[in-house]
Amino acid sequence: MSTFGTLFRVMTYGESHGKSVGCIVDGCPPRLPLIEADIQTQLSRRRPGQSNLTTPRDEKDLVTIQSGTEFGITLGTPIGLLVPNQDQRPHDYSETDLYPRPSHADWTYLQKYGVKASSGGGRASARETIGRVAAGAIAEKYLKLVHGVEIVAFVSSVSNIAMPFIHEQDERLYPENFWEFLNTISREEIDKDAVRCPDKIVSDKMRERIHEAKAANDSVGGSVTCVIRNVPTGLGEPCFDKLEAKLAHAMLSIPATKGFEIGSGFKGTTLLGHQHNDPWVLKDNGRLGTKTNNSGGTQGGITNGENIYFRVAFKPPATISQEQKTATYNGVDGILAARGRHDPCVVPRAVPIVESMAALVIMDALMIQQSRKTAASLLPPNPNVPPTMSGGILNLSKTQKQ
Amino acid sequence: MSTFGTLFRVMTYGESHGKSVGCIVDGCPPRLPLIEADIQTQLSRRRPGQSNLTTPRDEKDLVTIQSGTEFGITLGTPIGLLVPNQDQRPHDYSETDLYPRPSHADWTYLQKYGVKASSGGGRASARETIGRVAAGAIAEKYLKLVHGVEIVAFVSSVSNIAMPFIHEQDERLYPENFWEFLNTISREEIDKDAVRCPDKIVSDKMRERIHEAKAANDSVGGSVTCVIRNVPTGLGEPCFDKLEAKLAHAMLSIPATKGFEIGSGFKGTTLLGHQHNDPWVLKDNGRLGTKTNNSGGTQGGITNGENIYFRVAFKPPATISQEQKTATYNGVDGILAARGRHDPCVVPRAVPIVESMAALVIMDALMIQQSRKTAASLLPPNPNVPPTMSGGILNLSKTQKQ
Amino acid sequence: MSTFGTLFRVMTYGESHGKSVGCIVDGCPPRLPLIEADIQTQLSRRRPGQSNLTTPRDEKDLVTIQSGTEFGITLGTPIGLLVPNQDQRPHDYSETDLYPRPSHADWTYLQKYGVKASSGGGRASARETIGRVAAGAIAEKYLKLVHGVEIVAFVSSVSNIAMPFIHEQDERLYPENFWEFLNTISREEIDKDAVRCPDKIVSDKMRERIHEAKAANDSVGGSVTCVIRNVPTGLGEPCFDKLEAKLAHAMLSIPATKGFEIGSGFKGTTLLGHQHNDPWVLKDNGRLGTKTNNSGGTQGGITNGENIYFRVAFKPPATISQEQKTATYNGVDGILAARGRHDPCVVPRAVPIVESMAALVIMDALMIQQSRKTAASLLPPNPNVPPTMSGGILNLSKTQKQ
Amino acid sequence: MSTFGTLFRVMTYGESHGKSVGCIVDGCPPRLPLIEADIQTQLSRRRPGQSNLTTPRDEKDLVTIQSGTEFGITLGTPIGLLVPNQDQRPHDYSETDLYPRPSHADWTYLQKYGVKASSGGGRASARETIGRVAAGAIAEKYLKLVHGVEIVAFVSSVSNIAMPFIHEQDERLYPENFWEFLNTISREEIDKDAVRCPDKIVSDKMRERIHEAKAANDSVGGSVTCVIRNVPTGLGEPCFDKLEAKLAHAMLSIPATKGFEIGSGFKGTTLLGHQHNDPWVLKDNGRLGTKTNNSGGTQGGITNGENIYFRVAFKPPATISQEQKTATYNGVDGILAARGRHDPCVVPRAVPIVESMAALVIMDALMIQQSRKTAASLLPPNPNVPPTMSGGILNLSKTQKQ
Repeated sequence: MSTFGTLFRVMTYGESHGKSVGCIVDGCPPRLPLIEADIQTQLSRRRPGQSNLTTPRDEKDLVTIQSGTEFGITLGTPIGLLVPNQDQRPHDYSETDLYPRPSHADWTYLQKYGVKASSGGGRASARETIGRVAAGAIAEKYLKLVHGVEIVAFVSSVSNIAMPFIHEQDERLYPENFWEFLNTISREEIDKDAVRCPDKIVSDKMRERIHEAKAANDSVGGSVTCVIRNVPTGLGEPCFDKLEAKLAHAMLSIPATKGFEIGSGFKGTTLLGHQHNDPWVLKDNGRLGTKTNNSGGTQGGITNGENIYFRVAFKPPATISQEQKTATYNGVDGILAARGRHDPCVVPRAVPIVESMAALVIMDALMIQQSRKTAASLLPPNPNVPPTMSGGILNLSKTQKQ
Repeated sequence: MSTFGTLFRVMTYGESHGKSVGCIVDGCPPRLPLIEADIQTQLSRRRPGQSNLTTPRDEKDLVTIQSGTEFGITLGTPIGLLVPNQDQRPHDYSETDLYPRPSHADWTYLQKYGVKASSGGGRASARETIGRVAAGAIAEKYLKLVHGVEIVAFVSSVSNIAMPFIHEQDERLYPENFWEFLNTISREEIDKDAVRCPDKIVSDKMRERIHEAKAANDSVGGSVTCVIRNVPTGLGEPCFDKLEAKLAHAMLSIPATKGFEIGSGFKGTTLLGHQHNDPWVLKDNGRLGTKTNNSGGTQGGITNGENIYFRVAFKPPATISQEQKTATYNGVDGILAARGRHDPCVVPRAVPIVESMAALVIMDALMIQQSRKTAASLLPPNPNVPPTMSGGILNLSKTQKQ
Repeated sequence: MSTFGTLFRVMTYGESHGKSVGCIVDGCPPRLPLIEADIQTQLSRRRPGQSNLTTPRDEKDLVTIQSGTEFGITLGTPIGLLVPNQDQRPHDYSETDLYPRPSHADWTYLQKYGVKASSGGGRASARETIGRVAAGAIAEKYLKLVHGVEIVAFVSSVSNIAMPFIHEQDERLYPENFWEFLNTISREEIDKDAVRCPDKIVSDKMRERIHEAKAANDSVGGSVTCVIRNVPTGLGEPCFDKLEAKLAHAMLSIPATKGFEIGSGFKGTTLLGHQHNDPWVLKDNGRLGTKTNNSGGTQGGITNGENIYFRVAFKPPATISQEQKTATYNGVDGILAARGRHDPCVVPRAVPIVESMAALVIMDALMIQQSRKTAASLLPPNPNVPPTMSGGILNLSKTQKQ
Repeated sequence: MSTFGTLFRVMTYGESHGKSVGCIVDGCPPRLPLIEADIQTQLSRRRPGQSNLTTPRDEKDLVTIQSGTEFGITLGTPIGLLVPNQDQRPHDYSETDLYPRPSHADWTYLQKYGVKASSGGGRASARETIGRVAAGAIAEKYLKLVHGVEIVAFVSSVSNIAMPFIHEQDERLYPENFWEFLNTISREEIDKDAVRCPDKIVSDKMRERIHEAKAANDSVGGSVTCVIRNVPTGLGEPCFDKLEAKLAHAMLSIPATKGFEIGSGFKGTTLLGHQHNDPWVLKDNGRLGTKTNNSGGTQGGITNGENIYFRVAFKPPATISQEQKTATYNGVDGILAARGRHDPCVVPRAVPIVESMAALVIMDALMIQQSRKTAASLLPPNPNVPPTMSGGILNLSKTQKQ
């Protein structure tokens, strides 16, 4: 369905050929300062036509707030957000009336709904993500303002050109500076480059690869890595709604995604337990933390206060102008050369989408956990709780092995 | 939360130290033949103590049906399932009263709930998965009986020992026999081997690696690959509940998982669009299908009738008997050597868990789609629907490029 | 929250002082013919300014479809619906900046959200119901087209002026023609009169009573009765989502409602079992039905194919221009005379709102049941099902007592 | 479905002929003291065989906690609760194999599921309510302990014998002592009498009426009124999940219910606005409150801190031993005399069920609101919020009309 979230909930609507796209955000905390500019920033990072790396389809994607705020303050009521579809060219894709595009959603939408929209793939359209980004921007504003949460995504690979931390394959898993990199990387840094990869050397190669693909009427895939900093501990709901399960759900719901890994991910499966485990250590802030962070910020599906980081795989876009041998809806072999305006590579524009979905997941998990925590905190002290139940036996701590 | 699914819904309960573990399955279609043996088979494949590769904890894990059936037939009402906890040894883990186990959920559960169960990690226990497997067995029985759906998972890697299709890295992505392998691999084949890897040569190495880890009081990770065959087209709900999003959610909710990839996954990001796209072709059964299946059975989040296959990353188990330098709950450095009975490698036992979660996802998606499809099918014919909306223009098909 | 429904789901937004109000309808079956006029009809029956019985606030309430249809056909994707707020006069209610209106939501919204909208009661505004009516009109269109479902609500009481069937209090409970009345009453009949009460004699008294209240700057309450005909059997989900539970939920979510009763309702509690029970009888259509219908169309929370009828209590509107002794937000006693434009009686305009909420409930229950029914119908025949399980023992029927 | 609640969620299972009935409670705040006796008290008030007013079916209904607690403390994890079905007599109801009982759920369950349980009506069984009562007892324990919430239900009418406050019909609506009665009535008071009506004179008549019905193999209906005291303000979610909407949903999901009214209910529809409105007044505790409480504790669907009170209509039980003219499943006219053990009147035993469902609604609404409130409270102060938005203009309060 087109709804996401339990307490902080968004519902989106719109495909590329209607009057508008948008969403309703329900459950936003009241009294949050919110104006359109707060949302527009991320929408503009997502919009097409930002550079020659993306589709020439030109949409301003200007958002208006329809409800839920007054005098720049949220009321706690649903926030309606609307972005007009300006650059509509119905039936730009006429050949796709005959051919379901290979690896696109034309045929599956027809199978599901028994009816075919002009755009073929219905909501399997990049414009569907506008509602996600708009809603995510609101979640992010709250998270930043109240908890100092920082969410930064970047392009970590395009085709087989990848940042070094992806390749590294030994006991350490990661290059030495990796943890510090996660601590400091910023959106400003990311946006200096149209590819949105923070490693200049790698980024140049990526740009070249994208241009090659574009010149060949072809497309390339890639991956986006995202780090979330300053997340409160205790977020994520056992057992089916572990934080990583919700993140995986969120990320795999973004068009063109094929994979998700958190922390050490697939690489981590090659380590031994004693290498992979993150030892506990008293941190400078007086709190327990972990020395390494192969876990990626959660254990047992619950945040431990360390950076959350994960990587999302994006396949090469399905729509290419190159001629493809395929079959018509009727099963007749033929050759399709899709016209229209397409992205040769989606990962640069996917960056704010990944960030937004991450914000939606964290915000919802936060509100759910705030509820539990508040509810438990109001209980009167209970002298009958055995000391082992409150985590560690303080007065026995000297007897421990050292 | 501990609920999964919309129309076919399961809620689980239980940790390792209570009277029992179990679940309630709501929304199961009525008139399905169902007896305990249907469920026991998968529970027994999951239970500990099957071989010397797993934890010596010995649990029979015998399930009883509490409600929802009569005379071996489901009534359509909730099915209560209960498995007693037999082999309880409370506080077998006394040192973990002082130390949160590294990379385990002891500390995060304490952060979340402010209270520590005897078992430390609360529901972050392998026993929590019993409810999943029991519920999945019911879903699977329906899917098999009505749609011939076959779900087969197997161990595809242990540490860096992997089946060949994982390593392959060229335009083809996969070895030649890969598609055929997905078509034919069976549970019988898988279960011939305690590791549950169908490649005998690879499996022998895996077993050796697991024994090495066990001998060293260490643990190893791995990955499980799963194929789902004969899935009806049209399953999966745009835009947030794409089938792969639900599968990713389901898989990342299994303890110890760190990653999910569907179809070409992370490897697929290195291909060009023209290499990755799956061309359409008329199949022998008279239906449209795809020549290759890099998509992994879905497009736009909706099943296309091809095999669904995906891979799940499992980290090395966190609980190891080896001494680990870490800190106590109070932040004092020390050395923990966890006692107790642990799996050196979870992937062999994870196989039925992955299958069960897959079954729950497919079953729920199927029931949702059946609803839409039935609702649409009852609409009267509408002469005003333009021909382009019904998918392809039949009478123009001769004019197409060939 | 502002979401209603599981498979046919609506989310609404908007208060009286924003740019627009509206909703998103998700899960509508594809291929349903749908244009704005289908929705506008019910919106126009709801809009203010229809007669001198309602608020003079004049809103055209013209709806536009933003997404989800093409060529007048639904695509199966979310349908965005938007109605501009035209007649905005911000801060028409200045005295309510000091005084929370008695029995209105000004104070409770402030308690809930800690922030006060211009309109005081936030979404406790009649305009909030526009999204409900718009969504309900779509549900209704499907139900009518496919199942011939007819939903007709009417004003059954204003103050203590009530249609005869409400007063009747003997073994029969209802006047003789009551069942036939439920079978035949139509919207056309209802709309002949501005009060929307189909009993001309009663209606005249009602109109007079409303005018009296209006003249005294006062308000009056009333009740709306609704009948739903031709509902398929089997709708409603045990045990928490019984059809009447969902209807009660839906009706009590309409502003100003204080009660709900289905079938014999509160009156029925005074009967004996043998009087209240609806005996089974073979109907002319060859199906089993009930002779009387004190149950109101459901048994055990599941529809039995008889007419569903229920009654909803609406209190007198809280906002009156009469002076009221009350206290300010700060607890200082004073006198409030609310200005602005208000309905002296909401029940005439509540008629389409009740119908719409009923349509949303039935539509969602229908889609859920279609899913179960389809799922069960695909199971192969099972010779082991004992004959008692399929309802009645055919070959023993001659031996029964007669 | 068999799930109720969002953050405090219960799922129930079980019909009268299975091994056990029970439920899982998910989302209970951790650290709540909880032992079986806390739950047993309400279960014992619900169980059959308490007096000669109820069914002679004798069930001890002893509950065991399967999971989710240790050392008498909740862990925050799902609480499994199980009550064995002891007094099973399968097929005690053989004649109902031929006849669907009039006004019972036998036929509708068959229509819904296409299969008939031994008990006929499947989960439309009094035993289904055990899970509700068990779960409600946990919610209630928390509400009482932390917020001093008191939930007291009682029998307010049996047949046409009603407590005086129900009949009163003038401007005042209620007898003079009504508000005080709601403030003070207690369970101890209620339980002094087997009918559970606190008015001795009325209660004696009720008992007599029930015995008359029992002697005639007939049944009688009645109503249960419930008051909830000390509910925090701000509970209930606009617009579809108003507190009264959730209460109505909860109450109409109880077997045999036909109506719900909150506050003035149906009687209140006969008043004028100026009579019905509850004026604001500064209360002794220094908080704003209302002088009267026709609203019943909510305005705009949100609690205002006043007592919540509502009434629920229960029809006469459908199963009677009297001979009834009806038809078989096959449509053949005949006479049914149901054997078995039945309640002549359900309202005395319905009292704890109503209380439990009320507790579930309040607890869930509380946890949701705690989340919003906590989230908003963490926002930094905002100097740009206009004074009108924070409820009342303090420095203008002297200028108000007095």
